[in-house]
Amino acid sequence: MRPSKLGDAEIEYSMTAIKGWTRAGNSITKTFAFAKFLDGIAWIGKVAAAAERMDHHPDLDIRYTKVTATLSTHSAGGLTRSDFDLAKEMDALA
Amino acid sequence: MRPSKLGDAEIEYSMTAIKGWTRAGNSITKTFAFAKFLDGIAWIGKVAAAAERMDHHPDLDIRYTKVTATLSTHSAGGLTRSDFDLAKEMDALA
Repeated sequence: MRPSKLGDAEIEYSMTAIKGWTRAGNSITKTFAFAKFLDGIAWIGKVAAAAERMDHHPDLDIRYTKVTATLSTHSAGGLTRSDFDLAKEMDALA
Repeated sequence: MRPSKLGDAEIEYSMTAIKGWTRAGNSITKTFAFAKFLDGIAWIGKVAAAAERMDHHPDLDIRYTKVTATLSTHSAGGLTRSDFDLAKEMDALA
């Protein structure tokens, strides 16, 4: 079952459980910095496997040693529990 | 030795040797489409290894099964031979 869109109060509460993420309307975003270019790429490989397993795919912008992730649930038209689950997984893998 | 910035005529000539790339001022860009999300991620792994070997790193924007690459040589303030070499390598790996 697809998760449903969260309300503002639920989003604010969920934001307290993740660190370094910023909310921008219907998405949350964070820039991850790595020591080396290939460290960021290796992290993306692990994130991609997790994303595929969760069937929830992050937007990822690679800029040398920095990778900016943006999460949103397009099918729900906003933020859902899946976004926060994936954010936690990305943090754990970094 | 770092490659030097190419002039407009050299850029136009170099563009004829690559397919599907668009010039936008000081950069060239192309969106690669893959059948599956993990196909694009696997391609990025191969591109990253080539980029590291060439010491020239592309900007890569991952949007599910599509990856947009943007190439420019910031140290030269424009497009250089390195950008076109990397573009060819990325095409060959796709």
